Amino acid sequence: MNIPVRLGERSYTVVIERGALARKTAGWNFDRKALVLTDSGVPKAYAEAVAAFCREPYIETVPMGESSKAFGTLERVLSAMLEHGFSRGDCLVTVGGGVVGDLGGFAASMYMRGIDFYNVPTTVLSAVDASVGGKTAIDFHGFKNIVGAFCQPKGVLIDPETFRTLPDRQVSNGLCEAVKTGMIMDKALFELFETDYPMAHLDEIVTRSVSCKRDVVERDEKESDLRRILNFGHTIGHGIENAAGGALYHGECVALGMLPMCSDAAKARLLPVLQKLNLPTRIDLDPAAVYAAMLHDKKTTKGGIGVVRVERIGACRIETVRPERLLPLIQTVVGREAQ
Amino acid sequence: MNIPVRLGERSYTVVIERGALARKTAGWNFDRKALVLTDSGVPKAYAEAVAAFCREPYIETVPMGESSKAFGTLERVLSAMLEHGFSRGDCLVTVGGGVVGDLGGFAASMYMRGIDFYNVPTTVLSAVDASVGGKTAIDFHGFKNIVGAFCQPKGVLIDPETFRTLPDRQVSNGLCEAVKTGMIMDKALFELFETDYPMAHLDEIVTRSVSCKRDVVERDEKESDLRRILNFGHTIGHGIENAAGGALYHGECVALGMLPMCSDAAKARLLPVLQKLNLPTRIDLDPAAVYAAMLHDKKTTKGGIGVVRVERIGACRIETVRPERLLPLIQTVVGREAQ
Repeated sequence: MNIPVRLGERSYTVVIERGALARKTAGWNFDRKALVLTDSGVPKAYAEAVAAFCREPYIETVPMGESSKAFGTLERVLSAMLEHGFSRGDCLVTVGGGVVGDLGGFAASMYMRGIDFYNVPTTVLSAVDASVGGKTAIDFHGFKNIVGAFCQPKGVLIDPETFRTLPDRQVSNGLCEAVKTGMIMDKALFELFETDYPMAHLDEIVTRSVSCKRDVVERDEKESDLRRILNFGHTIGHGIENAAGGALYHGECVALGMLPMCSDAAKARLLPVLQKLNLPTRIDLDPAAVYAAMLHDKKTTKGGIGVVRVERIGACRIETVRPERLLPLIQTVVGREAQ
Repeated sequence: MNIPVRLGERSYTVVIERGALARKTAGWNFDRKALVLTDSGVPKAYAEAVAAFCREPYIETVPMGESSKAFGTLERVLSAMLEHGFSRGDCLVTVGGGVVGDLGGFAASMYMRGIDFYNVPTTVLSAVDASVGGKTAIDFHGFKNIVGAFCQPKGVLIDPETFRTLPDRQVSNGLCEAVKTGMIMDKALFELFETDYPMAHLDEIVTRSVSCKRDVVERDEKESDLRRILNFGHTIGHGIENAAGGALYHGECVALGMLPMCSDAAKARLLPVLQKLNLPTRIDLDPAAVYAAMLHDKKTTKGGIGVVRVERIGACRIETVRPERLLPLIQTVVGREAQ
């Protein structure tokens, strides 16, 4: 399945093809130097398969985890390209999850003011969430994704076979973003999660998610307005993620963040889906700490906080609310159960 | 004089207005937080004049000199914005020469993936060279401008009164880029330097230079081809700059770099202009060291080096030459005089 992303001269294609890595079918211009950036948590075989596409590959492995999204690691990636004499005509390929995609895309955006960047997401989360959109970033002073660039890849290759090596918790972490996408704009996608065995529909889930995100990004590349609907569940979710200090995955925080933003009818359908995916629906943290962490989030502006609400599955709207109105909403999913 | 730079949604205007800083006439949207970035070599009064435009200004002063174009200083600028709680709607203004413009523009391009950036160049060099084009960068591992971004400002304000506080050598350093622009595309601009007292035409020199560069950038924002003509004098010039280790100004290196790229007729007119501006026409360095430093330059690609040649004043063409052909050309301006 090829999903074209039409962004004028920054257009590219997302290829979703089971077994593509084993068959070496990327079809990209790799007749040049390529830095293949991966992390220590990704099976080596994936980066090696991508390197086999390339005439002159250099595999660079950074430590797994969010802590690699930092200036120190960024400098290391840039240094590697300098050491190997990369010119503006060479390229960088990321193989792994969101961490290497965010870090590598940002590095590619700035090396000689921008070299070609390809992305091979090997986790469900990075496939459905980070493969389209061109948002790259690192963390700084404890703020997530606070420093970065909009940098569209030249191509994205998703081989769903790579998801087989992921722990279940990682798969659910990624699927939560697909649930979110269904909630805000694709009822049929959401309904795949209401079937008996969603994993049987994994390729369709990925394809629909990527297509939806593509539709949004094509209409709003720089996140001026429409694209904000993708932040459904993320306002409170980011607050929880910061307050939890790494104990929860991103998708788990989004799961918790979506619930208070739903109508009762939408919540009644969302809850069993989250439970089926073993995603949390309540977390024992201090609501005040989550609230404070949320206010640190970059999406806060002086006019209030833009939040996304879902009244009925498949549609949403953006509201600007006073921050203090979010504290009681946080309390519906954060803190010890009342009963 | 207002010079519009038309780059679609990234359009902006360069205002050239004598006395504008004293009259506080920027006319920009400064009803928000503004980081006013300057360096220790710029008279404090300029940053303070700009700060007076702003509702909530924070002046940040970095050390003067090329060494501030580094990751450490970049992090310091980003930290300052974080500490003052800058959101995506706030802005950064650079007041000074190319160092703060390059550093600040790059910082603005990445803070929250891009906030508004205004530029108030207070040196001739930054006014004629860096005020249009959107090229921002820092140095890394000894490579000049090797890490950066294309980031168009929201507005540029040039007040030629600020040039009065510059030493003559700095003025000539900047004027050399205007000489270059005249050489490649504006005979009338070049001829202003052939008059008895070019400084009497300073405002016109700046205006014509900015207009020329605007014309090039409008047709080639990302330096894919046409924009390379602006590199006239820069291939050998950068080699000299790196080999000289800070002893020469950028414009002085460009002066030296232009001479070998001219026809005899063009050189016969260029030489007296450079002499009038007290710009060097020969430098006692090791030609082999300059050659080696030049090969490190990012404009080198495997097919050869793209160089710009001027046969007659006001026109130029790009040639790709084998690197080794440049060594004898370097020797015409580098090394002890033969006679």
